[in-house]
Amino acid sequence: MTLRIGLAGLGTVGASVFRLLGEKVAHNAARCGREIRVTGVCARDRARDRGIDLSGVTWHDDPVALAASDDIDVFVELIGGEGDPAAAAVRTALSSGKSVVTANKALLAASGVELARLAEARGVTIGYEAAVAGGIPIIKTLREAVAGNRVSRVFGILNGTCNYILTRMEKEGITFEDCLADAQRLGYAEADPTFDIEGNDSAHKLAILAALAFGTEIDTDAIHLEGITAITLEDLETAAELGYRIKLLGVARLTDTGVEQRVTPTMVPKSLAMAGVEGVLNAVAVDGDEIDEIMLVGPGAGDRATASAVVGDILDLARGGNPPPVLGIPAKTLGEAKRARMRAHEGGYYIRLAVYDRPGAFASIATRMAEQSISLESIVQKGQRDPDDPENNVRRVVLITHETTEAQIRAALESILSDGQIVGRPQMIRIEKP
Amino acid sequence: MTLRIGLAGLGTVGASVFRLLGEKVAHNAARCGREIRVTGVCARDRARDRGIDLSGVTWHDDPVALAASDDIDVFVELIGGEGDPAAAAVRTALSSGKSVVTANKALLAASGVELARLAEARGVTIGYEAAVAGGIPIIKTLREAVAGNRVSRVFGILNGTCNYILTRMEKEGITFEDCLADAQRLGYAEADPTFDIEGNDSAHKLAILAALAFGTEIDTDAIHLEGITAITLEDLETAAELGYRIKLLGVARLTDTGVEQRVTPTMVPKSLAMAGVEGVLNAVAVDGDEIDEIMLVGPGAGDRATASAVVGDILDLARGGNPPPVLGIPAKTLGEAKRARMRAHEGGYYIRLAVYDRPGAFASIATRMAEQSISLESIVQKGQRDPDDPENNVRRVVLITHETTEAQIRAALESILSDGQIVGRPQMIRIEKP
Repeated sequence: MTLRIGLAGLGTVGASVFRLLGEKVAHNAARCGREIRVTGVCARDRARDRGIDLSGVTWHDDPVALAASDDIDVFVELIGGEGDPAAAAVRTALSSGKSVVTANKALLAASGVELARLAEARGVTIGYEAAVAGGIPIIKTLREAVAGNRVSRVFGILNGTCNYILTRMEKEGITFEDCLADAQRLGYAEADPTFDIEGNDSAHKLAILAALAFGTEIDTDAIHLEGITAITLEDLETAAELGYRIKLLGVARLTDTGVEQRVTPTMVPKSLAMAGVEGVLNAVAVDGDEIDEIMLVGPGAGDRATASAVVGDILDLARGGNPPPVLGIPAKTLGEAKRARMRAHEGGYYIRLAVYDRPGAFASIATRMAEQSISLESIVQKGQRDPDDPENNVRRVVLITHETTEAQIRAALESILSDGQIVGRPQMIRIEKP
Repeated sequence: MTLRIGLAGLGTVGASVFRLLGEKVAHNAARCGREIRVTGVCARDRARDRGIDLSGVTWHDDPVALAASDDIDVFVELIGGEGDPAAAAVRTALSSGKSVVTANKALLAASGVELARLAEARGVTIGYEAAVAGGIPIIKTLREAVAGNRVSRVFGILNGTCNYILTRMEKEGITFEDCLADAQRLGYAEADPTFDIEGNDSAHKLAILAALAFGTEIDTDAIHLEGITAITLEDLETAAELGYRIKLLGVARLTDTGVEQRVTPTMVPKSLAMAGVEGVLNAVAVDGDEIDEIMLVGPGAGDRATASAVVGDILDLARGGNPPPVLGIPAKTLGEAKRARMRAHEGGYYIRLAVYDRPGAFASIATRMAEQSISLESIVQKGQRDPDDPENNVRRVVLITHETTEAQIRAALESILSDGQIVGRPQMIRIEKP
């Protein structure tokens, strides 16, 4: 029995899925026991040349109509966006008893629990390996391979654009603006890069991973978000001198007070393998009570890697049987996502300050840290005094703290700010523990 | 409906599986839709204290009897060894229509294809995630997640003992013998470490991965095997100076003339993430036509990580449905494993020679390389001339070649040996391409 696929969205990923399924009919049939054929497609522009042969395939103008069609068994949604028509089409497919495969992280971050409930009520499922970290099989790993573990942390480099920019800044000493322009020229960044560089894209992926890891509802709004635009070459250089790399990490951690979720520039010790993940690659690590830690590295985006993940999900569906619950445990049993407050975050911090070079300035800073019981692991003073302008000298000072809480570090930095011994605002970057 | 497990072998892994299943009944049921219970066990010594409560569980003295029992649904084989009783018990379980979960790489390397055929004839399956790289889900990744890819290479660090030894030798300058003694003291190496350090353990795992990656029969005998005992501190140090780390890699590659399989000490460029995988960790990378390359890193051994993989397989079976073929494609359709000859291997080489310090010695070596059209990327001369003993001076010379073939490098080294300008045999280490 052929498995009939309805494919909505024929952008670069959709066209790759179409090509891959068409070229590898026998290859795939050997692996899932049946033929897989795209029988219906839908996209906005029928006339556009996508380099694929759509003859013999039913064209639909409306993805909802394709999703509702009796001529398909599985609906593949590659339209994107958290709203309609993607959302309406996915709901229609699930409601009509069809499993869905999607790469749409925005839709899942916004409506994943509702869609999972709908799927499970209808006895179908949603495959979304392609929605998180592209070609890296992190969904299958969390949902199946390490399902016997209690997960305590899932974290990773979830955005290739940001990792490309930070890697080039560090390796080549090129400014953020120039790296971003190169990333746009190479197709690694959108014309409007806000969504990538401010961390929203990583946040969508992290919210899905956190739900799957901890058995809680998806809570995208709970994510503490900081992008990479404030990271300077000096930060990267100083971090490197101190044995760290700066990565935009998404981190979800189970704490005593709830789930902490954050997407922030983070200091990663060079001794961790994740520090060595460079360029557009993504990486995701999982800490579990039995496995300690495993890490997966690979292409987080790109049409072929994403298509590979979509096809992997289709092969699972083609084999049939009883898939795992969409979010690891039945959606109706997902726990409420109890948020840990960022103020309760515990860890070391990198603090960069521009300090007036005058008597007592540094002593007042050290005192403010001590008042909050923050102890310092290292202090690095950068730059030379200017003998021609002694009154206006400002020295860069970088502090690495021992473990403390976010509440303490924020209190200390507020006091330092109000003391008037520094210029501008302090830079603060969290250090991720191994 | 409870899934009833028969667990044969109660060593450290078996006891961990028993404990994990017992402690996490509700956790696991939420993930697979039913209860999982160990109902029968079997081990050699009933009296031994394993720190687990076996009350309410049927004890068997004979694993074959447990495998045949009607009181279990799935047979978990953690006895080990390629022969009986493990082999007989697995055959019995499959023949009686029970799926098997095993961590037994030796058994699969020796009889995997036969067992896969038996399983598929009976409509059952074999889960063996724990047999290759412990807690790293490489079987699931190859068999399911990247099943839509044509794989061109699978390679990795498959033995934690060897990686521990090589890492400590390089980082701390400790000799092979001292590192091995420490590994034995810490429980990372057996009292008789031959199987690990000569590469046999890695070979078993590689043979399974190669079959799965390329859709060919398991061909353990085809693996070109070199252990790590000949690697010196000087090799590690020189490699590091030249930008490489030396790892015991298992590499299976599809070439124009067949499948090349080798387990050898290998120079890995430091720029590759795999070079940074240290200590007892394992890592496996897969090159596919759609994903380019993904890499998985994690604990390759240890009772909890191995138990986690066993439980992952049990959860898959508990969900039911139609598992993928044991070796990725139906066992009866596996291709014959056409061996690529090692002489046809193409790549760069590290060559270390002890050269007499006399006129013409180095010229003759360079001439022999040139005769085989081998060009050199770098030449490093180590050590100082001894002015007190000019006649017996020997200088260490390390050559890094550009890409050539194994046939050419072997011919050149044979000529160099017969010229009598070097002491002892040359050291030759292959360089792995990114």
